[in-house]
Amino acid sequence: MAAKFVSERNLKFLLYDVFDAAALTRRPYYRMHNRKTFDMVLNETLRIARDLMWPCLEEMDRHPPELVDMQVRVHPAVKPIMREVGQGGWIGASFPSQFDGEQLPVSVASACRFIFFAANYSAGVYPELTSGAARLIVSFASQDLIDTYVPKMLDGAWQGTMALTEPAAGSSLADITTTAVPSGNGDYRIQGQKIFISAGDHDGVENVVHLMLAKIEGAPPGVKGISLFVVPKKRPDARGGLVDNDITVSQVYHKLGYRGTPIVELSIGDKGDCHGYLVGEPHKGLIYMFQMMNEARIGVGLGAAAIASAAYYAALDYARERPQGRKPAAKDPLAPPVPIIEHADVKRMLLFQRAVFEGALSLLLQCSVYADKALTAEAPDKPKWDLLLDILTPIAKSYPSEMGIHAVSQALQCFGGYGYCEDFPVEQYYRDMRIHPIHEGTTGIQGLDLLGRKVRMQDGRAYTLFTEEVAETITACRDDEDLAARGRQLEEAMALLDQVTRHLTGSMTAQGPEVFLADATLYLDFFGIVTIAWQWLLQALAAKRALAGKTSRSQTSFYKGKLYTCAYFFGYELPKIKGLAVRLQDDDPVTVAMNPDYFND
Amino acid sequence: MAAKFVSERNLKFLLYDVFDAAALTRRPYYRMHNRKTFDMVLNETLRIARDLMWPCLEEMDRHPPELVDMQVRVHPAVKPIMREVGQGGWIGASFPSQFDGEQLPVSVASACRFIFFAANYSAGVYPELTSGAARLIVSFASQDLIDTYVPKMLDGAWQGTMALTEPAAGSSLADITTTAVPSGNGDYRIQGQKIFISAGDHDGVENVVHLMLAKIEGAPPGVKGISLFVVPKKRPDARGGLVDNDITVSQVYHKLGYRGTPIVELSIGDKGDCHGYLVGEPHKGLIYMFQMMNEARIGVGLGAAAIASAAYYAALDYARERPQGRKPAAKDPLAPPVPIIEHADVKRMLLFQRAVFEGALSLLLQCSVYADKALTAEAPDKPKWDLLLDILTPIAKSYPSEMGIHAVSQALQCFGGYGYCEDFPVEQYYRDMRIHPIHEGTTGIQGLDLLGRKVRMQDGRAYTLFTEEVAETITACRDDEDLAARGRQLEEAMALLDQVTRHLTGSMTAQGPEVFLADATLYLDFFGIVTIAWQWLLQALAAKRALAGKTSRSQTSFYKGKLYTCAYFFGYELPKIKGLAVRLQDDDPVTVAMNPDYFND
Repeated sequence: MAAKFVSERNLKFLLYDVFDAAALTRRPYYRMHNRKTFDMVLNETLRIARDLMWPCLEEMDRHPPELVDMQVRVHPAVKPIMREVGQGGWIGASFPSQFDGEQLPVSVASACRFIFFAANYSAGVYPELTSGAARLIVSFASQDLIDTYVPKMLDGAWQGTMALTEPAAGSSLADITTTAVPSGNGDYRIQGQKIFISAGDHDGVENVVHLMLAKIEGAPPGVKGISLFVVPKKRPDARGGLVDNDITVSQVYHKLGYRGTPIVELSIGDKGDCHGYLVGEPHKGLIYMFQMMNEARIGVGLGAAAIASAAYYAALDYARERPQGRKPAAKDPLAPPVPIIEHADVKRMLLFQRAVFEGALSLLLQCSVYADKALTAEAPDKPKWDLLLDILTPIAKSYPSEMGIHAVSQALQCFGGYGYCEDFPVEQYYRDMRIHPIHEGTTGIQGLDLLGRKVRMQDGRAYTLFTEEVAETITACRDDEDLAARGRQLEEAMALLDQVTRHLTGSMTAQGPEVFLADATLYLDFFGIVTIAWQWLLQALAAKRALAGKTSRSQTSFYKGKLYTCAYFFGYELPKIKGLAVRLQDDDPVTVAMNPDYFND
Repeated sequence: MAAKFVSERNLKFLLYDVFDAAALTRRPYYRMHNRKTFDMVLNETLRIARDLMWPCLEEMDRHPPELVDMQVRVHPAVKPIMREVGQGGWIGASFPSQFDGEQLPVSVASACRFIFFAANYSAGVYPELTSGAARLIVSFASQDLIDTYVPKMLDGAWQGTMALTEPAAGSSLADITTTAVPSGNGDYRIQGQKIFISAGDHDGVENVVHLMLAKIEGAPPGVKGISLFVVPKKRPDARGGLVDNDITVSQVYHKLGYRGTPIVELSIGDKGDCHGYLVGEPHKGLIYMFQMMNEARIGVGLGAAAIASAAYYAALDYARERPQGRKPAAKDPLAPPVPIIEHADVKRMLLFQRAVFEGALSLLLQCSVYADKALTAEAPDKPKWDLLLDILTPIAKSYPSEMGIHAVSQALQCFGGYGYCEDFPVEQYYRDMRIHPIHEGTTGIQGLDLLGRKVRMQDGRAYTLFTEEVAETITACRDDEDLAARGRQLEEAMALLDQVTRHLTGSMTAQGPEVFLADATLYLDFFGIVTIAWQWLLQALAAKRALAGKTSRSQTSFYKGKLYTCAYFFGYELPKIKGLAVRLQDDDPVTVAMNPDYFND
């Protein structure tokens, strides 16, 4: 099978035609780059993805990590992948050059992460987590910690992790019980248990560096008493060697999918000899961690969109090859069957997938562009881009995760019975995808974050900025007859969003926080659909601009495909907000009023 | 873990309070039964499900069938299950007593199938297929074939199958190429290949009896040339023994889920010695097979609703036990966390699951009651019940299958990270469930069947009968204040369904069959939501009647749960038709117009 899991043309269309990433190189921080260097990076990323990650996609699933002699054994491909991706500069792709990073725009780095994830999600997670953990160190830790850990991490020699969750504290981090006791030598002794730690131990690297949340003895209760530590599996000793740091893997989880990455349970400091190194100030751990979490949430969105991309190309390939049935008007039973891509219902399933993952990818790059702008803006402009990124992060995490499940399910459906069999990769994609609404904050948590925090913060400033961005796109559509009509559709959708948002925030006053937040997940869904519609309009605008110039036959097909997918989204997906709006404006608090006892029978 | 996978109370509520199955015993055909015998059957079914099927649910998944020495080996539990279920009368539960059947109402038999499927879907499929195949024989085959095959099948000694699909003919049965050549002795020699044959071979039985579609030499092309044959794995010889009938298993598929049942590929008549026995008349095979397919489609619906039921009870159990987080209004970080069932979003996920699978089960029993009425009605009434069953079958197959996927996904979500791990059964349910939109006619095929055939047949007679049934329920709600409002909601929904249906049938004339049928899957979705809303209103009516009498505390909880779940369905699910109606009345034929080349990039 050809290794088609992403569209290079689509990535470049989004980066250059829609978001004008090349313009970023006019900013001083990115001036060492130009479109040519971006293209080289993308090509090299595609090569690594194709040659190193894709070939072991299935094998990493079939031979999941095992715990052998207290050590997690992963697929032998992990080691060369980490080494090549590290030494090739991907882990430090968007790190400043002072840390030996490539100082690439976040948007270009996001495109690279997407490519890796599409080739092999599990394989992409190892560098992804390492990059996030290292960034946390460079952002908030001492120079000493930076010098000790970051070069090894960016090099792919040491793995980074996020060690947050505990047996009694998943969605509710306030309840963590891992403790940190000052040793008197400036470091801490850590004791506790962490569960569901991705890449929490493995033999593809020389060491594992946990960015771990713990509570310092005597800290205030709740989230205000959480501190962040660097806690390595092996700690550097005075002679430049590495000694065991008293962390034991107590189990490797057996999972539905995403099997190429070990998810482990850790016992920390059983012998009282686990050294942890405080990052930044005490009790500010959660604030620091949010930086990594937000980056990780964009990463989850990229991973979800990427798996949907790979599933789509598998389904597309099959739909083109598989003959079955005839057109509804065909009467002759002896006429040869047509490839199933000729059937309207199959085209609908393909358009749906494309609408979802290309729409999602567009939003993820949009968020990355906001990150780039925040990073390079003059001081007064910075908050604007930060706020836009803030309000869109829960959507960029959840929309691809939730809708990606449906997209991969439709890809599987295109294969009929074969989709359910292990002979094709879609059944794996179906399993791999299901993790995304769970990790890095469940969909429910994202809904609470959006409605309970982001929409209302700074008196709705982020929300207003978002509506201004969308309005700008609508204005840009006015001169084009087709797109003007779509612009009006989006305008109506935004008006409905406004109406729903006002209704909900009103219910906060009238009925209190429980009723206000009860349908936050539906609100997230609504907000997501409107946001993706906006992204499709941006893509349609770019496609129209391109079609107005000189294009090759294959370019024309591509741009027309964009316009049809946009039409699909506005025709089939956007109307879903009408049903959601009914519920979101309904004052009957069904779920709040439902007594848990009524689930008895 | 307690073996809770179905609610006995709910089954009895539906059978007796909603559908008054006890009244069927006033009909002569069912007069040997009464509610007491029904209850005994249900209790015995629950016992077998709990003691025999449930305990091997996980093991049958972990140790899937293997092909060893040309023979499919299945889990050792299959043999005693088939024997006990056969000898206990379940395979022949709704067969007339003249064939040694129990002559139980279809509705009671459906409840039994649901119980088996909920305990262990794979285990339930063996008797399910055998029952369907045997019914086909008693309905259309000669007395000789009946005598030879049916007693062994109803006894659970021989497995029955449906052998339809071929490498080039799945959704399009017109294209099958398996041939049947008259031998001159009254039987036929069969040659060909069949794929995706469920329970197509295994060592849990003494023989396998395929109900197989093939084309007799010189038959007309297309569906009008398809005949039905009994083709056993081993054929009875003159001395009362069994001889090999030249059918080879060429592979066992490795599947995402539903792993306890072997799905196989068969090579038939490689040595020219496969004997097949014609059922009924030549070239009428597809008409006969439709009887089995319709029964099998109800079976798929039951299987899907059953898996969702089992997943729901697993999630409910977890939600009650798992403490995490606090209510939105709680301020004290030291207050103990609440069980997650206290959170509105978790209650929403549980209500969604319940709304889906209890609503679906209600529709499936509704269909079964129609089958009972058709079977026992006086001649002039019979077509009415047959037509109602006909029009609702595609919905009874698809709604549970499609929505069941979402329901199980929400069950998994209730578990957070644990749901993704093999420690809990939900990840298996998630995999098992995914087969349902594929087998026995994909969702796309069901949509075409509903809109292209069922809605329009006999000048819309079936559709009119359906609207009359719904109208009767709405009328029954008029005297109750709460339910009258819901009745009006359903009335509006039915008016919208009418409007959409008229629009679509109009497009058949205006734009031809391809555009008319392009969104048949969405129409199926719309029709399904309205149908389930109707079923929830029927349940709410029954719950209200019960609450008006004397009820125990636990009964009160149960009936109130029904009312809340109905409120959930009308508040959260029914509004979805608004978005669908927008698309279904939109004349832009996006998917038809989309040129397959535009998928290129």
